[in-house]
Amino acid sequence: MAYSIGKHLRLTVFGQSHAPAIGAVIDGLPPGIELDMVTIRALMDRRRPGGGLATARREADEARILSGLNESGLTCGAPLCAVIENGDARSGDYAALARTPRPGHADYTARIKYAGHNDLRGGGQFSGRMMAPVCFAGAVCMQLLRAEGIEIFSHALAIGGVGDRPFDPVGEDMETLRALQRMELPVLDSGAGRRMAQRVSEVREQGDSVGGVVELMIQGAPAGLGEPLFDGLESRLSAALFAIPAVKGVEFGSGFRSAEQLGSEHNDRFIGQGGRVATATNRHGGILGGISSGMPILARVAFKPTPSIARAQNTLNIETMEEDELAIKGRHDPCVVPRAAPCCEAMAALVIYDLYLEGKANG
Amino acid sequence: MAYSIGKHLRLTVFGQSHAPAIGAVIDGLPPGIELDMVTIRALMDRRRPGGGLATARREADEARILSGLNESGLTCGAPLCAVIENGDARSGDYAALARTPRPGHADYTARIKYAGHNDLRGGGQFSGRMMAPVCFAGAVCMQLLRAEGIEIFSHALAIGGVGDRPFDPVGEDMETLRALQRMELPVLDSGAGRRMAQRVSEVREQGDSVGGVVELMIQGAPAGLGEPLFDGLESRLSAALFAIPAVKGVEFGSGFRSAEQLGSEHNDRFIGQGGRVATATNRHGGILGGISSGMPILARVAFKPTPSIARAQNTLNIETMEEDELAIKGRHDPCVVPRAAPCCEAMAALVIYDLYLEGKANG
Amino acid sequence: MAYSIGKHLRLTVFGQSHAPAIGAVIDGLPPGIELDMVTIRALMDRRRPGGGLATARREADEARILSGLNESGLTCGAPLCAVIENGDARSGDYAALARTPRPGHADYTARIKYAGHNDLRGGGQFSGRMMAPVCFAGAVCMQLLRAEGIEIFSHALAIGGVGDRPFDPVGEDMETLRALQRMELPVLDSGAGRRMAQRVSEVREQGDSVGGVVELMIQGAPAGLGEPLFDGLESRLSAALFAIPAVKGVEFGSGFRSAEQLGSEHNDRFIGQGGRVATATNRHGGILGGISSGMPILARVAFKPTPSIARAQNTLNIETMEEDELAIKGRHDPCVVPRAAPCCEAMAALVIYDLYLEGKANG
Amino acid sequence: MAYSIGKHLRLTVFGQSHAPAIGAVIDGLPPGIELDMVTIRALMDRRRPGGGLATARREADEARILSGLNESGLTCGAPLCAVIENGDARSGDYAALARTPRPGHADYTARIKYAGHNDLRGGGQFSGRMMAPVCFAGAVCMQLLRAEGIEIFSHALAIGGVGDRPFDPVGEDMETLRALQRMELPVLDSGAGRRMAQRVSEVREQGDSVGGVVELMIQGAPAGLGEPLFDGLESRLSAALFAIPAVKGVEFGSGFRSAEQLGSEHNDRFIGQGGRVATATNRHGGILGGISSGMPILARVAFKPTPSIARAQNTLNIETMEEDELAIKGRHDPCVVPRAAPCCEAMAALVIYDLYLEGKANG
Repeated sequence: MAYSIGKHLRLTVFGQSHAPAIGAVIDGLPPGIELDMVTIRALMDRRRPGGGLATARREADEARILSGLNESGLTCGAPLCAVIENGDARSGDYAALARTPRPGHADYTARIKYAGHNDLRGGGQFSGRMMAPVCFAGAVCMQLLRAEGIEIFSHALAIGGVGDRPFDPVGEDMETLRALQRMELPVLDSGAGRRMAQRVSEVREQGDSVGGVVELMIQGAPAGLGEPLFDGLESRLSAALFAIPAVKGVEFGSGFRSAEQLGSEHNDRFIGQGGRVATATNRHGGILGGISSGMPILARVAFKPTPSIARAQNTLNIETMEEDELAIKGRHDPCVVPRAAPCCEAMAALVIYDLYLEGKANG
Repeated sequence: MAYSIGKHLRLTVFGQSHAPAIGAVIDGLPPGIELDMVTIRALMDRRRPGGGLATARREADEARILSGLNESGLTCGAPLCAVIENGDARSGDYAALARTPRPGHADYTARIKYAGHNDLRGGGQFSGRMMAPVCFAGAVCMQLLRAEGIEIFSHALAIGGVGDRPFDPVGEDMETLRALQRMELPVLDSGAGRRMAQRVSEVREQGDSVGGVVELMIQGAPAGLGEPLFDGLESRLSAALFAIPAVKGVEFGSGFRSAEQLGSEHNDRFIGQGGRVATATNRHGGILGGISSGMPILARVAFKPTPSIARAQNTLNIETMEEDELAIKGRHDPCVVPRAAPCCEAMAALVIYDLYLEGKANG
Repeated sequence: MAYSIGKHLRLTVFGQSHAPAIGAVIDGLPPGIELDMVTIRALMDRRRPGGGLATARREADEARILSGLNESGLTCGAPLCAVIENGDARSGDYAALARTPRPGHADYTARIKYAGHNDLRGGGQFSGRMMAPVCFAGAVCMQLLRAEGIEIFSHALAIGGVGDRPFDPVGEDMETLRALQRMELPVLDSGAGRRMAQRVSEVREQGDSVGGVVELMIQGAPAGLGEPLFDGLESRLSAALFAIPAVKGVEFGSGFRSAEQLGSEHNDRFIGQGGRVATATNRHGGILGGISSGMPILARVAFKPTPSIARAQNTLNIETMEEDELAIKGRHDPCVVPRAAPCCEAMAALVIYDLYLEGKANG
Repeated sequence: MAYSIGKHLRLTVFGQSHAPAIGAVIDGLPPGIELDMVTIRALMDRRRPGGGLATARREADEARILSGLNESGLTCGAPLCAVIENGDARSGDYAALARTPRPGHADYTARIKYAGHNDLRGGGQFSGRMMAPVCFAGAVCMQLLRAEGIEIFSHALAIGGVGDRPFDPVGEDMETLRALQRMELPVLDSGAGRRMAQRVSEVREQGDSVGGVVELMIQGAPAGLGEPLFDGLESRLSAALFAIPAVKGVEFGSGFRSAEQLGSEHNDRFIGQGGRVATATNRHGGILGGISSGMPILARVAFKPTPSIARAQNTLNIETMEEDELAIKGRHDPCVVPRAAPCCEAMAALVIYDLYLEGKANG
């Protein structure tokens, strides 16, 4: 089903931007785990609006846990349901959108799909707010993966043409990586971060928005994660990453650049490294034949510019079929990348933990 | 399961490169259909090795249908099983690979995953030959989709840095598109095609290989295909496309380029066109919120260079953990793009037809 | 996953008996529907404890809808989440059960499965209270099915050896059937109902409990519902019915009695009836080859006696491995049948509506 | 999908009675296993027609393995495809059935479901012959389960009112059980077996058929198999068992009899037995809360009489809507029970092994 992901650890998401609540049901958690609420809150806070670069809508995003814990507060084998009430919603801003669909938004396609019954308030079920329960569940998986030595990191590789330095494909030191999790705009090069913030400010002043790229690195994944053919790591990760609103491209390792390479340039030589098998370089992005090689798993995720812009745009009144002008009011991010980075991490965590359990069943 | 795809029309693939046979089981075909064997054979022939640009292994790829047809030769509601015997296999070529995994191949990851029991002959279950039954099933879906006015086309957008002209995002005329299906190396600009073939020849002579990009266009898809969140068109299509061996990147519409665009540059204006809603441009690649907009659906798929190259490469003997040299013998494509294009079309057809049936259930 | 059912309309249930709440997430509802809260409440009330025959625990079972409705209160295509807070829970009653598992209960098997972390309070995730969200979702499906002319009814065919008259296999008039939905103990023969109530009272006074049989009839189902082999009507219905706590047997049509019949006695003759195909008798219970025949679908569901009884029982202290005596306190139904009947209807509704949607996808 | 079962070990069945072949694709087998072809053949032979009690159609049922084995003949992680060619088929016998559906058969429901395109030859996809690949796959699972100490046995508990002695619910000795696997008509009491054979002979001479009951016992299953709610052992086993043609009832433990019992009669007392937890009696049939208790798992499966009988029957000509008479020619079993017993074992093996793998993923 469209609102569920995972085969062993299965997340079901519900809610709309302005429904009474949004939430997550997580089925398949191991029993006897104490949730690390600090990690969960940290990831959710990074996604939450309110930073200088983001929308002004205030969301407390306090997750209330309705089920799944026993009287000692440990997971009990029953599905864990976490609910986030939708507080500060100003539905009045969105009324006219039924007639004049916003360019670049799901307004029009949702209208067709649901015969006009889709929830228009705040983007309804297509809102980026649906990522809040995804981040909750992803953070739980990150806790479980960390216990297996697997950690997931991301940074803003580019915003509107301004680039950060890429991850070193054969690995980064943990201090550098953990620092990223404390930054509002996670970058490896702080100068690049300042230039990105500057670019976003300019764009906001112009009533415009801008796209960017998130780079994702999974460190510590053992060789052998992922399944062949339709359940390969690239298939599963890309499917999850494309579920984040505004994603238009996903690549692994040298990605689109490998299309221009020779085999002799692209192939990564196997080497022995401290008694284990590694590769000297990592153009394969840690994945061969859909299965992890033991090298860091590397993905890049392209985000389009936020479609909601203050500048006037032409659109169509689909009732009269006449041209109309649209100036979108309300609070919108000029760039989704800072808030999208934790969503990429969460999606990756859901996939990797699910494939980890798959490996246990088959191993 | 890793060898199955689809929820309503479900394809299960079996076989290995040098097993007695490979094949497909297709569950969910509508009853009363006469298979268009000409279309099926045409798509399979385009994937089949033997062209001037491809490996010299001869595969007749004759699909024998074991089940699924009634006494009149029409589909009967039971799963259709098509089997392709594996004839011309030279297993002797592959014996040493157990010890010295080929760079860029699944040899090492498969060994880890299957505790050394994976089938090494011809790449086993990781062989590109697994795409033969995918093409069979994809061609069946293409026949069913064509009856709904939906057609899928592809061309080699680039091979080793030599580029074809891209598809016009708002649509191409059908004559141009149909011509692509008759070309060994499908290109829109025949000059580009000659330069690509020249590039592949050079690379082959050097004992090397080269990557490329396939561009895919789905014409005629109505607005409303695809589901929200985890079953969006991008999620479903990318998962299927990444299951093709050697794919390292997938993007839709303006893809990675949209990361550098402003919202005012990227957003596609809605317009009325002959009484129906369209967009003036198509940077969104026919997909908004994971759901088709009625514009052509556009994807680009990056292929890495074939890892099997004749040139000597360094690798590791994973039993002795000492460096070793490897010169891969056998027959290998210097560039997978010509044979990968029909695989992209087949994967897209499987996904689009499945989502079409999903729409019928929910509509 | 264990807490989800359905392929097109997918219900996910969460909660435990004494968790903060229990609830349902329903994915796949058609858009634009106004929920019939009267029907929903009526079905939930029939399951709710509090009747003279049932436990004294007071549950208001007020379902709060968190998501899935648009601003007009119609379904919007997003998953519908309904939450029922757990109010009147007396957890103290259950503390000692960790050591001395109750005979006939899931205490012991849950302890093994969840390494002792299962929620012991009120039966945790094994409580009959998990049926409240099932009834909510089933009532929604009953509303949707009624619009297609399909209705589901049940009665107490037997309680502790006291029998009601069985349904007429070829159909009952609607007035008789609708009356069942208004009875606390639904029976066709009111005298039998009185004798059953009398039997339950006696058993309660003895500190004991008693089993029974629910008979289920689905009227108005067209021929052609259900899929072959593993998705046949019997397979799907039985799987759902056995998910109700205390069910130990399910049969369709003449069921176990058909094992004693000759083919010439059992086969139902096809006849023409008002221009349509029917059968003169209905020993097949409306199902042939797993697919509905257009005749009423008939199932019988056997319930064991409630395992919680006030009478002292011997059990094992599994920590000391010594015999122990157990007298279960707390509030428990002496017979689950009256409250189980609406659960059977709800489960059947979930299955039948899901197969109805499957037919639409494949039709 | 209707032709697939299992989540971790997934069986997909294809074929029709008179298609070129029938077969099985098994995805999820552990790598490095040598198939025990003797066990496989033994189970398939028990299902194969040809015994004195069964139809005269000769089926060699030689399974040819097309994929899934490596060069050493061990499972390699790829799906195993086994194909059985359909040899001795006399399609001419079945021509008129399109118009005059056989009472008790799927002829009519299949016609409706597939708009008349279903394969009529030999029952098409509704034939009992579909159980041949199920038995192949089930035998593979039985081999894998045996390595875990779990074994599955069955006998004819009753045929047409003649009863065998039931299994001792707390266990039988292995010699008795293994003997059942070598009998054409598996019974615990050889006198009962002779009377059953006599009854079948009589019925056959009268051109009639008769039903019966198979009793199934799973020994050695550890406590903790099965999942709560919708994936409970009863739900999963019953769904698989009802997929066998002619099954009309399934019960576990004391089953329908428990509906007449008091709680104090039904509850099984926990006891210590050689240091482990057991129950003194086994009315719960080895399952509490859908999860195995460690006691033998006990099920009874009711089979209706074979609908194909030589005696003349009245039916409807559904083209003219006039009454017609039907005398079914061809070769048909007067009682399916002897051949159904190995099918029950196979189905149980598929479910139990799948839940065993589920436990590994979650454990």
